[in-house]
Amino acid sequence: MRIAIDAMGGDHAPDSNVLGGLQAAKEWTDAEIILVGDEQRIRPLLSEIPSNLRIVHASEVIEPDDEPVKSVRRKKDASMVVAGRMVKNNEADAMISAGNTGALMTTGLLVVGRMPGIERPALAPMIPTIDGHGVLALDLGANMDAKPEHLAQYALMGSIYREKVQGVANPRIGLLNVGTEAQKGNELTKEAFPLLEALPINFVGNVEARDILNGVCDVLVCDGFAGNILLKSMEGTASAIFSLLKDSFTRSLKNKLAAAVLMPELRGLKDTLDYKEHGGAPLLGLNGLVVKSHGSSDAGAIKNAVRQARVAVSSGLVANISKEVIQ
Amino acid sequence: MRIAIDAMGGDHAPDSNVLGGLQAAKEWTDAEIILVGDEQRIRPLLSEIPSNLRIVHASEVIEPDDEPVKSVRRKKDASMVVAGRMVKNNEADAMISAGNTGALMTTGLLVVGRMPGIERPALAPMIPTIDGHGVLALDLGANMDAKPEHLAQYALMGSIYREKVQGVANPRIGLLNVGTEAQKGNELTKEAFPLLEALPINFVGNVEARDILNGVCDVLVCDGFAGNILLKSMEGTASAIFSLLKDSFTRSLKNKLAAAVLMPELRGLKDTLDYKEHGGAPLLGLNGLVVKSHGSSDAGAIKNAVRQARVAVSSGLVANISKEVIQ
Repeated sequence: MRIAIDAMGGDHAPDSNVLGGLQAAKEWTDAEIILVGDEQRIRPLLSEIPSNLRIVHASEVIEPDDEPVKSVRRKKDASMVVAGRMVKNNEADAMISAGNTGALMTTGLLVVGRMPGIERPALAPMIPTIDGHGVLALDLGANMDAKPEHLAQYALMGSIYREKVQGVANPRIGLLNVGTEAQKGNELTKEAFPLLEALPINFVGNVEARDILNGVCDVLVCDGFAGNILLKSMEGTASAIFSLLKDSFTRSLKNKLAAAVLMPELRGLKDTLDYKEHGGAPLLGLNGLVVKSHGSSDAGAIKNAVRQARVAVSSGLVANISKEVIQ
Repeated sequence: MRIAIDAMGGDHAPDSNVLGGLQAAKEWTDAEIILVGDEQRIRPLLSEIPSNLRIVHASEVIEPDDEPVKSVRRKKDASMVVAGRMVKNNEADAMISAGNTGALMTTGLLVVGRMPGIERPALAPMIPTIDGHGVLALDLGANMDAKPEHLAQYALMGSIYREKVQGVANPRIGLLNVGTEAQKGNELTKEAFPLLEALPINFVGNVEARDILNGVCDVLVCDGFAGNILLKSMEGTASAIFSLLKDSFTRSLKNKLAAAVLMPELRGLKDTLDYKEHGGAPLLGLNGLVVKSHGSSDAGAIKNAVRQARVAVSSGLVANISKEVIQ
C-alpha cells in the first residue's frame, strides 16, 4: 500500500513530517511512504532513504491562514493538493496532512472527491474519555449544518471505522442530545433518531454532553456546530481548571510542597484529557482515505497517523463504507 | 412589591422554600412575600408570620416527572400554576419556583403569557466564569431551535437584564460560535450576526466555547440546543476532573497527606465552577417576571432568588424590555 504524507503542512513541518514518515517506513516495510513537498527542503532532513520511501516534489504550500477553497483551487502544485490528486488518481491509497483543516476538507471534496451516495463527508477525531478508550466523534467541523440523513450517514461511517480500523466489536453509537429520552432534542435530532434506529448499527440512543467523558458510547454523532461547541467547551474547562489548580497550588510554600507530590498524578490526568494525544482524524465519506493529523503534530503523531491509515487501508475501509452506503 | 414563591416545587420543598421566604420577608420589609401551596404543610414550618408574609393555598403540586404541558393544563390548582396566575392577574409582581423546569416554562407561556413582540421567551441562567463574575446565558433550554430574530431578541433582553438587574454597565454581548471571525458559523449564527450588530447593544461579536470560562462576555447568546451542549459539557468535564483528582489523590498515603493540604483550594475551585451557586435564572420575554430557582435550592438559594426578583421589579425590568422590543 502507498501512503502519501503532506510534508509541508503543520506547525512543525517539514521536520516532524519527514521524521515521522521515515520512522513509519522503517517500521512498516509493507507500506510505501511518499513524502510530498519541497524536495530541496525534504531531502536534507532524511538521514537515510529506505527503499519503501520516496519523495514527490510539490512547489507550493497551503498556509495556515489561506482561505480554504481559494487556495486549493489556485495552488494546484501545493503539497496537500498534490497528495490529494495522488489518492484521486489511485497513485496513493491514503494521504495524511497536518496542515490547514479547512483546506484539507476542501481538498477532500474537490480533489479526492465524495463517495457516491454520501452527501457530506465528515471529520471524525477522537474525543478523550476517562477510561482512556476515547469516543470517535463526527462530524467535528467538516460541515456546520447537517440534515437528519447526514447524521444517519455519519453514524454508519463512524460505526464501520470504529469496528474495522479501531477494532471495537459492535461499537455503541450515540446521538448527541439534550436528554436521553427518545423524544428529546431539536428538530434535527428528533428527526435523526428514527433514522439511526433503522440502521444496521448498535444505536444506543441519545447521549448527553455531560456523559461523553464517561465513555457512554464508542461513536458520537452530531452536526459540526454542536460538535465544535462540545469539544471546545471540554477543552476550555479542562484548561481553565488546570490553570486554576496551578495558581492555587503555588500560592504558598506549603501548597507548593504538597503539589510537588501530586504533580505526576496531575500530569497523567492532563494527558488523559488531551485530545491531541489521540491521533489523526479520518475524513470519512470520500473516494479514498484522507487523515487529518493535528496541527501541532510531532514525528510520533505523524507516525501514528500512518499506523491508522495503514490499518484502514488493510481493512478495506473505503470499500466497506461504500458497500453499506449503496445498499 | 409582591413576590409569589411556589412553596411546593424543588427537591427540598416545602421546607427550604418556606424558610427562604421567611428570611426574605424579614430582610426586605418593603416586599410582600406570598407562599403559594398546601397551607396545612406550610403553616407548621413558619416559626413566625411577619406582617409582610402570607400564604395562598393551592391544593395540587406539579411533580418533577410530570409532563409539562399536560400537567400545567390539568392541575389548575397546582402551586406553580396558581403563582403564575397571580402574576398574570397582577396580584403578584414576580414569581419564583424551584420546581419542574419544563412545567415552569409552560406556566410562563400559557399562564403568565408572552410579552407582545417577543416570539420566544428565553431561560437565562448564569454560567460561572473564572473571575467569579459569571456570564448570563440565553437561551438555556426554553426552546431547542431558534431563528436569527430570536437570537436578536435574546441579545436585547439579556443586555437589559444584565444592566438593570445585575448592575453591569454597558454589558458585552457575545454570540456563541465556532470561531471569532464574523463570517464563521452555521446558518443560524451567520444570519444572526448582522441582526445583533444592528441592535443598540454592546455586541462584541462571536465567542468560542473554550473562552466562555475566561469571561470574554457578560451575556452569551445561543439557541437552547447549543446552550445545553455547552453547559452540560462544562459541567461534565469539571465533574470528571474533580472525581479523577479525588481518585488519584487518595491512591497512596503520601498523596493523601499532600491532598489534605490542598483540599481547601480544591473546594474553593469547585465552588467557583458550580453553576448552582449562581442563583436563580429569569425567564425573559414574559408579561411578568418568572424566576427559576435550581431544583436543589436550599433556603439561601430561595432567598437569593427573592433578592434578584426584588431588584428586577424595582428596576422596572419587564417594562424596560417591553419598551425596547416594541420600538
